[in-house]
Amino acid sequence: MLFHVEMEVRIPHDLPTERADALKQAERVRAVELQRTGAWRHLWRVAGRYANVSIFDVSGAQELHDILCSLPLFPFMEIRVAPLCRHPSSIRDDDR
Amino acid sequence: MLFHVEMEVRIPHDLPTERADALKQAERVRAVELQRTGAWRHLWRVAGRYANVSIFDVSGAQELHDILCSLPLFPFMEIRVAPLCRHPSSIRDDDR
Amino acid sequence: MLFHVEMEVRIPHDLPTERADALKQAERVRAVELQRTGAWRHLWRVAGRYANVSIFDVSGAQELHDILCSLPLFPFMEIRVAPLCRHPSSIRDDDR
Amino acid sequence: MLFHVEMEVRIPHDLPTERADALKQAERVRAVELQRTGAWRHLWRVAGRYANVSIFDVSGAQELHDILCSLPLFPFMEIRVAPLCRHPSSIRDDDR
Amino acid sequence: MLFHVEMEVRIPHDLPTERADALKQAERVRAVELQRTGAWRHLWRVAGRYANVSIFDVSGAQELHDILCSLPLFPFMEIRVAPLCRHPSSIRDDDR
Amino acid sequence: MLFHVEMEVRIPHDLPTERADALKQAERVRAVELQRTGAWRHLWRVAGRYANVSIFDVSGAQELHDILCSLPLFPFMEIRVAPLCRHPSSIRDDDR
Amino acid sequence: MLFHVEMEVRIPHDLPTERADALKQAERVRAVELQRTGAWRHLWRVAGRYANVSIFDVSGAQELHDILCSLPLFPFMEIRVAPLCRHPSSIRDDDR
Amino acid sequence: MLFHVEMEVRIPHDLPTERADALKQAERVRAVELQRTGAWRHLWRVAGRYANVSIFDVSGAQELHDILCSLPLFPFMEIRVAPLCRHPSSIRDDDR
Amino acid sequence: MLFHVEMEVRIPHDLPTERADALKQAERVRAVELQRTGAWRHLWRVAGRYANVSIFDVSGAQELHDILCSLPLFPFMEIRVAPLCRHPSSIRDDDR
Amino acid sequence: MLFHVEMEVRIPHDLPTERADALKQAERVRAVELQRTGAWRHLWRVAGRYANVSIFDVSGAQELHDILCSLPLFPFMEIRVAPLCRHPSSIRDDDR
Repeated sequence: MLFHVEMEVRIPHDLPTERADALKQAERVRAVELQRTGAWRHLWRVAGRYANVSIFDVSGAQELHDILCSLPLFPFMEIRVAPLCRHPSSIRDDDR
Repeated sequence: MLFHVEMEVRIPHDLPTERADALKQAERVRAVELQRTGAWRHLWRVAGRYANVSIFDVSGAQELHDILCSLPLFPFMEIRVAPLCRHPSSIRDDDR
Repeated sequence: MLFHVEMEVRIPHDLPTERADALKQAERVRAVELQRTGAWRHLWRVAGRYANVSIFDVSGAQELHDILCSLPLFPFMEIRVAPLCRHPSSIRDDDR
Repeated sequence: MLFHVEMEVRIPHDLPTERADALKQAERVRAVELQRTGAWRHLWRVAGRYANVSIFDVSGAQELHDILCSLPLFPFMEIRVAPLCRHPSSIRDDDR
Repeated sequence: MLFHVEMEVRIPHDLPTERADALKQAERVRAVELQRTGAWRHLWRVAGRYANVSIFDVSGAQELHDILCSLPLFPFMEIRVAPLCRHPSSIRDDDR
Repeated sequence: MLFHVEMEVRIPHDLPTERADALKQAERVRAVELQRTGAWRHLWRVAGRYANVSIFDVSGAQELHDILCSLPLFPFMEIRVAPLCRHPSSIRDDDR
Repeated sequence: MLFHVEMEVRIPHDLPTERADALKQAERVRAVELQRTGAWRHLWRVAGRYANVSIFDVSGAQELHDILCSLPLFPFMEIRVAPLCRHPSSIRDDDR
Repeated sequence: MLFHVEMEVRIPHDLPTERADALKQAERVRAVELQRTGAWRHLWRVAGRYANVSIFDVSGAQELHDILCSLPLFPFMEIRVAPLCRHPSSIRDDDR
Repeated sequence: MLFHVEMEVRIPHDLPTERADALKQAERVRAVELQRTGAWRHLWRVAGRYANVSIFDVSGAQELHDILCSLPLFPFMEIRVAPLCRHPSSIRDDDR
Repeated sequence: MLFHVEMEVRIPHDLPTERADALKQAERVRAVELQRTGAWRHLWRVAGRYANVSIFDVSGAQELHDILCSLPLFPFMEIRVAPLCRHPSSIRDDDR
């Protein structure tokens, strides 16, 4: 099942730089892992903002939630989720 | 170049049914064409709403605009556009 | 899988009364059916507004969308959907 | 009487971890108690957010308020309340 | 139980004047009745707007809803409801 | 002259507890005084929120402002003011 | 007593031109009268919009409301009202 | 003096096509004239929307208003205006 | 040229009191000066809020900006600016 | 390709003055460089706010993003981006 997820990152300016860097590095590692498993299907940067647009392919809302709230930057992200379904005019079979 | 496009369709209730049906049918034909050329790269329905989330792959803002404002339902759509770029953590080469 | 759905009904004042009444009656019939199948798990009226708060229990986003957009009043509803999952502090087994 | 309550938790990043953990633990204990008494009738996690959707079954606004503002995380929650009533199309007797 | 209710009236300009006048007259009659029974406890006009701020004193959300949606102008009103309870600093016994 | 005032209190979590408690205590004393003089005519708690809905009966905007900005919690309140006048359908003489 | 009033005019496109013109002409006459009596103290056009910013000098909320809702274009205006008082740094005696 | 102006065009679907076409054609002619005089300094289309972003170079707010409200499509436009001034880091002399 | 300016002051609670007091005192001095020169034409307090509504009479956007960003409280103010022009129904010659 | 970019700067009051000054100075140097290369085509100050309106002329969304997120004040800016294209009524050849 596919979900459209928008994440906006807001790191407080008084978070120590080393902690911020460690979180970003851990986030990167986790994002790569989740793309490899297929759960994080698409990942794009929104131009001009510390934000991304993503498509997740998971078994349901529970798996999506477990993934999102385990992201290292989760406490500093504003997240919006929309469940997706196949568009009647779509011609791509794998864009369920 | 990739663009994230959200379209919400609001057909006025006093539009004659035949005209609405003709517009929807023409929209479907056009959406299929644009997916075949590769310009309309992804097309998903947002669950519970007469709306879609799409990714367009075009040469730039001009081509995107020409495509969107030529859609049969364009006069009845509220559209939001965000330019995308490669995410540093992305592992998919074709998700430029 | 559970979804939280809020529906606000806005029937245009120039819709003929008979058509509005027929739609409302058909909506009622459909709502009862969907509750009987278990798909429309909870249905509450929001006090003071022509709106409801509902919990749907469906196989996924596709089934949810098919149900919602087949509702007789769908063209006159503003709908917001949020996917739900089990709360770690919940003690009700069937509130997955 | 039923109330629809949405709670969004925003714990400041500079709250000491031990205090945050203690508050969350106390919140969990209180949530379980209130579900056992029947006051906190339903409790769902909103996928992707540190938030819940709840249904409270209380004697009125006073009891609801006393419960909500005694929650350990209350000072860090943004709360929206809507009073519910029976939906004319509902078939569940206990969803008053 | 007390509820804070804000009503904003928006009568479409193409509603026939006689129908609008009849609705307003019926609204007035109903408002007086409901004040006499004690259900519509306070009723103020918001200066400069076709709107009111009201306090209702009813047995619960169901009675409130039944009253509000039976108002002649209900189909043309945008309504916001907030349940009230006694303020710990209040000195008026009847402002429960 | 009557004013409708909504106050939402947001006390920063890093305000020392003693200072917060002293402010709340002073606020309570002041609220009681102002109700006794008749200036703070009604005072209700909004269920589920650290907020109140109030009706002030003062000589005009100047007196209202002097009262509000002298409240101990004023620096931590978000306040919305709406001037009220007699509703043509009101039957309560003192709800001017 | 002074009030800050913002009025935005939205005349529906299907209102017959003669009626719109008559309303605008009547509005102009009324605005001049009210400025002459001193009630409509300042009147400015907001550049680029069919809107004005005004200062009213009236005995209170009731007089303000009576004036505003008697304006010929009142049914087509969105109005926001804010009560004003003397600013402690003001040096103009008549800007009470 | 420079103004930043955003115009969003919303032509009602029930405006006769000929009238809409005549208005658009007249708008085009007027836009060209105003660019030639130098008053309409920049004019860009916002991709995906029936909207433009413009820079006007006029003697002041009065001239700006006279120009904008004389545009043929003015009654169907939502307009936002922001006065601009020279940016301290600008290196273009004519971008006053 | 006239500008309508709304200023909302938000002084952080952890700004040392002496610094806040010094800023407020300096602001007062500056506001009086600017009213004396005629640039700050009107200055009103918005009842119930730490905010003002002002009319500035300056040579243009540049002078307005230089004035506003030199105000001692500028870093703590949220400011909205709207350029004004003569209203066709105005009878006051100096309300250009 | 042209982009319309709005930047609002919000420097936290507890950022050390020297660091803020260094960031602003570096921002100025970078803004001049980017204007010299032609990438930052227009740069205007919005009167009364610590904000600018800019037009960027870049190869695409990727170059735009690389530029914006490398700005020294980027962590303290709220940025909105809109892709632009040639307006059919434009007469300036270089306003592509």
